[in-house]
Amino acid sequence: MEAAGPPTQPPAPHPLVAPLSFLLGKWRGEGEGTFPSIVPFRYGEEILFSHHPSKPVISYTQRTWKAASGDPMHAESGYWRPRPDGSVEVVIAQSTGLTEVQTGSYDSEKKTVTLQSELIGNAAKR
Amino acid sequence: MEAAGPPTQPPAPHPLVAPLSFLLGKWRGEGEGTFPSIVPFRYGEEILFSHHPSKPVISYTQRTWKAASGDPMHAESGYWRPRPDGSVEVVIAQSTGLTEVQTGSYDSEKKTVTLQSELIGNAAKR
Repeated sequence: MEAAGPPTQPPAPHPLVAPLSFLLGKWRGEGEGTFPSIVPFRYGEEILFSHHPSKPVISYTQRTWKAASGDPMHAESGYWRPRPDGSVEVVIAQSTGLTEVQTGSYDSEKKTVTLQSELIGNAAKR
Repeated sequence: MEAAGPPTQPPAPHPLVAPLSFLLGKWRGEGEGTFPSIVPFRYGEEILFSHHPSKPVISYTQRTWKAASGDPMHAESGYWRPRPDGSVEVVIAQSTGLTEVQTGSYDSEKKTVTLQSELIGNAAKR
């Protein structure tokens, strides 16, 4: 039986978000952490970029977990704010008690984003 | 028919989180915003406090929406970190491009939390 109508399309993103729409969705992967002073560890990671078309903002959450047990490790969340001048601002809160402001630029054809940390807030040092 | 076993209990929270466990869950409400220079507006609000018992951290998300249309308004997210000395640190990223560190104390019997803003990061002023 044919469908009665066209498939439902997600609404178009906000015009400022459109060039960054390649980010939208849920990204998952696995990796290995290494550092000279610690035992290497394997972890899982999930990043979610979500967006409502009425706002020029992308909501961002990231979390990692131990591959062996599934127990949570680092997590962070915040907002990506593409600006009319082609730059992007990112504000993040981290589960370790840090806040961060990052700024940078993006190339929507190459699907790249370049960010630099501009400000760090540390709840433990105030 | 009787249930075959006891009901499933959620795992006990992390000992540092236990005194703040009255926060955990999803909170919803409605309100009215007023300010001399704007037309009063009604809004809906949802706050979610979630927790994994292996980490002494509470994940926090808050969002508001216009009561009439459901369109999103302000949102923020971050982490609440109860400390062994009885204080609590809160780190937040806001959809408006701000980060914030708050610190304070809580009373688990009265179910109150008192927070003070300690640091503000502003992505637009750097």
